[in-house]
Amino acid sequence: MMRTRPLKVALLGCGVVGSEVARIMTTHAEDLAARIGAPVELAGVAVRRPGRVREGIAPELVTTDAAALAARDDIDVVVEVIGGIEPARTLITTAFEHGASVVTANKALLAEDGPALHEAAEKHGVDLYYEAAAAAAIPLVRPLRESLAGDKVNRVLGIVNGTTNFILDRMDSTGAGYSEALDEATALGYAEADPTADVEGFDAAAKAAILAGIAFHTRVRLDDVHREGLTEVTAADIASARRMGCTVKLLAICERAADGRSVTARVHPAMIPLTHPLASVREAYNAVFVEAEAAGRLMFYGPGAGGAPTASAVLGDLVAVCRNKLAGARGPGESAYAQLPVSPMGEVVTRYHISLDVADKPGVLAQCATVFAEHGVSIDTVRQQGIDGPGDGASLVVVTHRASDAALSATVEALRRLDTVRGVASTMRVEGE
Amino acid sequence: MMRTRPLKVALLGCGVVGSEVARIMTTHAEDLAARIGAPVELAGVAVRRPGRVREGIAPELVTTDAAALAARDDIDVVVEVIGGIEPARTLITTAFEHGASVVTANKALLAEDGPALHEAAEKHGVDLYYEAAAAAAIPLVRPLRESLAGDKVNRVLGIVNGTTNFILDRMDSTGAGYSEALDEATALGYAEADPTADVEGFDAAAKAAILAGIAFHTRVRLDDVHREGLTEVTAADIASARRMGCTVKLLAICERAADGRSVTARVHPAMIPLTHPLASVREAYNAVFVEAEAAGRLMFYGPGAGGAPTASAVLGDLVAVCRNKLAGARGPGESAYAQLPVSPMGEVVTRYHISLDVADKPGVLAQCATVFAEHGVSIDTVRQQGIDGPGDGASLVVVTHRASDAALSATVEALRRLDTVRGVASTMRVEGE
Repeated sequence: MMRTRPLKVALLGCGVVGSEVARIMTTHAEDLAARIGAPVELAGVAVRRPGRVREGIAPELVTTDAAALAARDDIDVVVEVIGGIEPARTLITTAFEHGASVVTANKALLAEDGPALHEAAEKHGVDLYYEAAAAAAIPLVRPLRESLAGDKVNRVLGIVNGTTNFILDRMDSTGAGYSEALDEATALGYAEADPTADVEGFDAAAKAAILAGIAFHTRVRLDDVHREGLTEVTAADIASARRMGCTVKLLAICERAADGRSVTARVHPAMIPLTHPLASVREAYNAVFVEAEAAGRLMFYGPGAGGAPTASAVLGDLVAVCRNKLAGARGPGESAYAQLPVSPMGEVVTRYHISLDVADKPGVLAQCATVFAEHGVSIDTVRQQGIDGPGDGASLVVVTHRASDAALSATVEALRRLDTVRGVASTMRVEGE
Repeated sequence: MMRTRPLKVALLGCGVVGSEVARIMTTHAEDLAARIGAPVELAGVAVRRPGRVREGIAPELVTTDAAALAARDDIDVVVEVIGGIEPARTLITTAFEHGASVVTANKALLAEDGPALHEAAEKHGVDLYYEAAAAAAIPLVRPLRESLAGDKVNRVLGIVNGTTNFILDRMDSTGAGYSEALDEATALGYAEADPTADVEGFDAAAKAAILAGIAFHTRVRLDDVHREGLTEVTAADIASARRMGCTVKLLAICERAADGRSVTARVHPAMIPLTHPLASVREAYNAVFVEAEAAGRLMFYGPGAGGAPTASAVLGDLVAVCRNKLAGARGPGESAYAQLPVSPMGEVVTRYHISLDVADKPGVLAQCATVFAEHGVSIDTVRQQGIDGPGDGASLVVVTHRASDAALSATVEALRRLDTVRGVASTMRVEGE
């Protein structure tokens, strides 16, 4: 059953993930060969800086000419772990043109240009696999694309960025502010020197686009995903969440509308009840809830980032893609037949937690309540409290019932215009109930 | 891309699961066709009692002759949801011989005779898929077999039986005894009239055999799985667990030995810390931890039983198997190349919680401690307490450090023989730390 000619793998990128992929390919070569049905050979490694010593990688395999490596006709599979849009996109396209299947961890590229890449793979009769692009080692792409292929997914809700979860967890457990928690995350290596992609929600939004696309059999691009980062979450927000029996998480939420005719995808901070399983996802861990018609509620949990976990997902895909190569077959490609429209954020149905600084005088609550009513937004709870220290101010904390995001944000704008409202201290959505 | 000739599916069994499979095939026919690339047609349904009206199933499709249906040469896929060893085994083999791929939810049969079935599928060039046999809709077979195909799984630890988890959850939350909780489970439909397969651990043991086999690329049969049910778990055990900051769960545990040269698989009640994520799995839910070298700790959670969740898994497999049929390919077959020996329970390394009824006099603790030392078992904690009411008895509760199960059970036997030990009230393993 085992054939002798090895399958040749080109590795593009040899950073945190790439070096782990190379290491496992070397140390677990026999297992991989047994599972694939043929040995796999690392045929080349493209790097940016050739000088560095790379343990376990023969120096003659290392090249700085990624384009030439991706274009070699003897390569069976190209593993792309460079990240970013270019040169990754051109390299992957080159690989397809030369008959190689591609395994990638590149969420930004897939969210930006997934359909074109899928089409190129289809055209050249090769595979494009990307489990590592969703939540590293947590199996999500395969369960959504294959395990739930006979079911109807209605909702994907999860924590898909480890850096921001670490920051929010620290803010929640220590009372620290955002900057302080970010500093700690940076010091511990959980946040990069430039944390923008994580804290502004770009990373989570790319993952939301990928997951929504697979879950709803519809093309969803990064631009379709409403995105808010966590830079404006304050210690006061976290404290306010606590008073409601909630915590704050940066959530990626992909939903099918109640009438089934459209979908939405969004990333933003939200309060969720402490009793919700996602509330207990600590530190840099990730977890994703999937709600499907027949399956019910499933949850997937694990480390959503890091060299080894990401390499695990890449290697799982590598085994699958190699098996397909040997069988002369292809795995499931893009499934976008449903072509559901992606609705804007205004159409999302959610709840708001609104904290207002108001004048401490009679009639303020009645005035505010009128504004909610005028916008068709029903109030769940109101809490009035005096502001600490001198002055005549007070605060009003309102949690609404479910309404469209458009109605909720129009309500907030109208409240802002009231004379008696000195400021909107914060608004945050409430999810997971 | 879509071909017109439909793929023909024969459904063997039309109970709780089968009727859901038929319902979804009918109501979601267009989605299934789009995902597969060809329509699927229900070509026959084998039932035991032909008289019952089956909503949505054309009466002319219903037959009591399952053997003839499985032997039809025009059938592409046979879905077996009858359960049990025979006639399921013969029917599946017949299907293979006539060129059909098989999707089954039959854990008992796979744990008993998986290797022979895999060989038969291989011989006839067809697929054998069985995601629903592990934990219904919770994807476990596919993640272990495919997502983690490039990783090394060291441990699978989980709650894989909903009935027993419901019973233990009730005992924990209400203080009820086993019989009382079982009665409640029966009344609510969580336990069958004859609950033996669940409460004696046979169902969980079959799942452990299936999961261990896939995780360790080794044949593991039901007989290889050490099995203890929960019929002897008492309210006192649960209370004792509480005092230790633990709860009691019926766990399936599949482990690779520390030296990597053998594996073990077992099902038994165990105390786990309340802080462990499995401790918060309530009611009839299932959850499984998977620990892999590169991926780290993953958890999969969801409804592990029920008609719709099981049908979801069956249909996911049906889509995959149909895609393979269209591509003229086969999915991954059995992977048992590692051929690791399955060690007996005595070699498992675990911890014991031992509750002894002892004479209330000086020197008893010293006597007992000597027995532990003689067996090379180190004590973690000891708690002595007087027994309520009249008499001169007392109780001694010991929690050990890790030792082989053989040494631990020999220690318990030796304690039982001490004059000062009136009885061993209970022993339970402690896991998840």
